[in-house]
Formats: sequence, structure tokens, C-alpha cells
Amino acid sequence: MTRARQWVLRRRPSGEPVPADVELVELDVPVAGPGQVLVRNAYLSVDPYMRGRMNAARVYAPPYEIGEPLYGGAVGEVVASEDPRLPVGTCVQHELGWRTHSVVPAGAAVVVDPEQAPLPRYLGVLGMPGLTAWVGLFDIGEVRPGETVWVSAASGAVGSLAGQLARLHGCRVVGSAGGPDKCRYVVEELGFDACVDHRAGDLEGRLREVLPDGLDVYFDNVGGGHLRAALSLANPFARLVECGMISAYNGVVEPVDNLGLIVGRKLTVRGFIVWDSAHRTPVFTRHVARLLREGAVRYDETVVVGIERQLDALVGLLRGSAGRGKVVVDVRDG
Amino acid sequence: MTRARQWVLRRRPSGEPVPADVELVELDVPVAGPGQVLVRNAYLSVDPYMRGRMNAARVYAPPYEIGEPLYGGAVGEVVASEDPRLPVGTCVQHELGWRTHSVVPAGAAVVVDPEQAPLPRYLGVLGMPGLTAWVGLFDIGEVRPGETVWVSAASGAVGSLAGQLARLHGCRVVGSAGGPDKCRYVVEELGFDACVDHRAGDLEGRLREVLPDGLDVYFDNVGGGHLRAALSLANPFARLVECGMISAYNGVVEPVDNLGLIVGRKLTVRGFIVWDSAHRTPVFTRHVARLLREGAVRYDETVVVGIERQLDALVGLLRGSAGRGKVVVDVRDG
Repeated sequence: MTRARQWVLRRRPSGEPVPADVELVELDVPVAGPGQVLVRNAYLSVDPYMRGRMNAARVYAPPYEIGEPLYGGAVGEVVASEDPRLPVGTCVQHELGWRTHSVVPAGAAVVVDPEQAPLPRYLGVLGMPGLTAWVGLFDIGEVRPGETVWVSAASGAVGSLAGQLARLHGCRVVGSAGGPDKCRYVVEELGFDACVDHRAGDLEGRLREVLPDGLDVYFDNVGGGHLRAALSLANPFARLVECGMISAYNGVVEPVDNLGLIVGRKLTVRGFIVWDSAHRTPVFTRHVARLLREGAVRYDETVVVGIERQLDALVGLLRGSAGRGKVVVDVRDG
Repeated sequence: MTRARQWVLRRRPSGEPVPADVELVELDVPVAGPGQVLVRNAYLSVDPYMRGRMNAARVYAPPYEIGEPLYGGAVGEVVASEDPRLPVGTCVQHELGWRTHSVVPAGAAVVVDPEQAPLPRYLGVLGMPGLTAWVGLFDIGEVRPGETVWVSAASGAVGSLAGQLARLHGCRVVGSAGGPDKCRYVVEELGFDACVDHRAGDLEGRLREVLPDGLDVYFDNVGGGHLRAALSLANPFARLVECGMISAYNGVVEPVDNLGLIVGRKLTVRGFIVWDSAHRTPVFTRHVARLLREGAVRYDETVVVGIERQLDALVGLLRGSAGRGKVVVDVRDG
């Protein structure tokens, strides 16, 4: 491949992103300068937060800029190196995705071992989504054995691991997901104690059936009506882990009219961004890599082939139609 | 006074309580049984939470029962004793108010010293509202010197102390209150750095002017639009102390449409009920009693005379028209 391709933001989406919001441009393969490496990317990450960064408002990270390339997680192989720490042939994970070739400062690339796990894992269960699940559950939610946990978006990259970790920790774990296929997967393949289909209506009523004793920890990836139901079902001193609110990412905010329960039930509703917990990576990696070796956690990936399909993959993820587990784009052939 | 009077709940209010919801009944002065004392009450407490307990739903405490007496904080003097720990003449604080005479189990009465402070103080700055301010600020909000704090309902029993404690702790403190008189009081008498009138419209815009660097701790007594503004102005890792949501106590819920900021700004929104922090009473009392002796905090009371005015006092408190500081009912003459 003698040319590189990368996605550029052309305008800020209104609601769900459409093809005219972005452009896939072709350019010469870039050259690494001193202290940099050129990475030929193999897999690109697709994450819900990317929609938020397409908006103009800075929340926790700068927004993507109009006319500039998009970026995000990626893994690939160093094909040219101007830094002795990362020789050609090294596999690395970095944050300059949405493109086939990335010039990365050596200090911003993390070496990964393709012998220990297939490369896409470093974008998923052994990468940012895995750390997100681990930090959210243990550091933010302070989950304890014997507690009851509800994980929303339970078939997704973060939720699927959060629920399995909680179950291994000695919790009763209920999931929610969109559609009967995902729910079956969550119970039969991931081993959750129950899973509620949020598309079937009356989310709170259905949850109440499987949570007769309420909930102690809610791992929130959705917000809106899901958050409302969690407040309603929360036991005194429950913790609500605010990992994401995918229901609002396209700009539609569902009202939450029972916030008074935060006072009366003495709840802690706590948001976090995984980048603040990078120092937990060694503990997380030891724990989850061991569980993977032992076959104690199951992890699925949905692989979309071809960089031209990355926007579609993101839209599908936001719609809940993307598939199971972590969504990645295979760009080994461009 | 040879007869006693007490308030009974006749039906559950819809919205703001009206006279027909309750009845002030006259009865014989009750008699203390073994292990009990008869207290002739001097002052009855009026607190926003009392409106919530008139509803049917149990939140953190059982609701008041229809046909049964209301109850709440009170201070008075033991006039008949069937327990050697509390001889006649002892002054006590207890939770069987809304009546002129209370039969109280000796173990449920707390001895107070009328020489150290006037009796109403034990319902206010040295009682439950004072402990609420202290626990909310230090234990729940984990406030640190140098931080910026916003206290809502700043002229009230809890808010007035919370703001002064924060200021003594080395914080910049902004209040909000309803109307120019209260705002002047909060700045000129209580020493807050600024105070915003939430009745003047555009609460968030006015707050932004006095909080150019955002806020690190929000002490919430109001909820609704106030909470929305706090989320909007919160700095990363800010703590929102959910002490009360008086805006919703009469059943009108204002929408909060920016909960997504909890994730992006990594906020902690934490509710609490002061009864869970009774173990902090000794530390709180040492701290605040010393500040009162030194004249370092100012504390006001609004005294309403006559038990027949207690419901009006509660309605006024919920409307924000009750007056400054702690509201108590003087029932020394019935």
C-alpha cells in the first residue's frame, strides 16, 4: 500500500452522524521525524465517546477539529522508526487511529505483545474498555461480594466485562441490552444471572422482577430512562457508576424526574473518565490477563473490515445494532 | 395549662399543605410510664423534610400516618419523670414535637444545657440542622481549603452555617437565596463572598458572573434548576452534596437535562441523611460550640409564637417566605 487513508471531520453532526459530516481522504504515507515512529495500523477502535468529541463543546477532552483528522485507539506495527525504544516490527497501541498509517511520538505508544493476545484485544478487554470496566466497578463503584449489580449495555465492550468481573467477585449480576438475541448472549454466554431487554418496554417493571431486593451498584452506560430506573431500584447507600450516557450522545436527552431519591436513599452518583486511572493499568492487566488465560471471562469482538466502514460502525454502535462486544475496524488491507 | 395540644395528620396533602390536611386537637396531658418522662415543650422545630413525610411513600423514614400525631424535633423541660436519669427540671431535646406535651422514652431524649445556649439553638445551629451542615460540608463534600463553594438556600438554617463553615475553612463561598433582602443578609451579615437572587431569573448566568472559575463543591438544598446550574458550573472532580431538594417537596419536579456532565466532568453527586452521622455529633459539637463562643459564626432564628401557627410556618418555609435562619415555634404559652 503506497498511499495512506484517513478520516477528516468536515462539519459537526446534528444528531446521528451522516456521511457528509466526514471524509475519507487519501494522502502520501507520512514520514516519522526524530523521536517518532510510523505505525502501519492493523485495527482501529470504535467507541461511543467518539460521537461526543464530534460536538463543539469541550467536555473532558478537546473536541475534534473541523478540517482535521479524527483520532482514537489503534493497534499496529512499527514500520519505520526514529526512536531506538521502538524498533521496526514492534507492535504498539496508540491514540492516533481513524487512519491507516500513524506517525506517533514514541512516548505516546504502548508496546503490546501479539503472542500473549491477538492485537484487537488491546483495543478491548486488555485495553481502554477493559480498564474502564475494572476501574468503574472496583474504584468508582466500590463493589463488594454479595452485592447486587445491574450493568446496562451488558453485551458491549465495557458492560460485558464489568458484569463478568462482578460475578467472579461474588455478586448477583443483572444485565440489560437491546433485543432478545443480545439478552440471550448475556445470560447464556456471559453468565449473567438475568438480562432485561430494554426495547421490550417497561424497563423499570421488568427490572423489578429480576431485582426483587433492589440493587447496590448500577454500572451506567446509557443514562436517561435507564438512570431513572436505577434510582428507583437503588437500595440505601447504593453507588451509581456513571461511565457513559449513550442515550444522549446523539443529542436526545431523556428526562430523569426522580433525582430526589439521591438524598432520601443516600446514593452516590459518580462519574469518571478512564484516562484519570492510567495508574491502575498494571493491577488491571495482571487481573484480567490471568482471567483470560484461565478462560474465566469470555470476550467477543465484532470486526468490521475496511477503513471506509468506520463511520458506519460508529453509527451502528450508537444505535445498538453493531454486534457483540468490542467493535474494531480491520484495516490490514486498507 | 391543664390540657395538651397536638397536630394530627388528617389526609395526605396534594402539593402545598392546606389547613384541612391536618388538625390541632386538644387532649388531657399525657402521663409518663416506667422509663419515660413527660416533657413540657418550649420550642418545636420546623424543617423542610416534614413535608416529605406527609406523603405516603417511604423514602428514608416511615411516612407520617393518617389519624396519628405528626412528630419532629422539640426542646423542653421534664415536668414528670419515671426514669432516674432524667429528673424533673432537666432540659431535653427529642423527636416527638408537633405537640405541647410529649411522653418520651428516657433513652430517646438528649440532655441540653440552657446555660450554654438558649434552648432554640438545640433545634438549630447546635442541633440537627447544624450537624447536617457540618457533615454535608466535611464528610460528604470533603471540602478543602482554597476551593470554591456554592451553597443554595444560603439564608436558611443549614445553608447559613454551611457557608460560614466553608469560609472559615479557607474557601471562597457564594450563596443563593430568594429575594434581595435575603441576599443582602447572606453577604453583609453572614459574610459570604457573594449571593445570587434565584428569583431574579437566569440563575446560571448570574452565578457564572460570581463564579468565574467554576465551583468545586455545591451544597444543594434545592435541586431542580439549581442542580442543573451546579452541574453546568462544576469543575472536574467537583462534589455535589445532595442535602435536600426543597424545589420538589411539594411535588413539582424541575427537569435536569445536563446529567451527562456527571460523566465528562467526573463529578460525585452524593446524597445523605443526617441521622446516619449521629456518631459525628461529638466532633461537630466541639467545633461549632467553640465557634459560637468565639463569635466566629452568626446564627439567626425566626420564632413563630403559638402551636396553632406551626403548619403556616412549614408552608412559609417551603415557599421561602419564612424568614432568616432556623424556624421554630414557641409553644411555651401553648
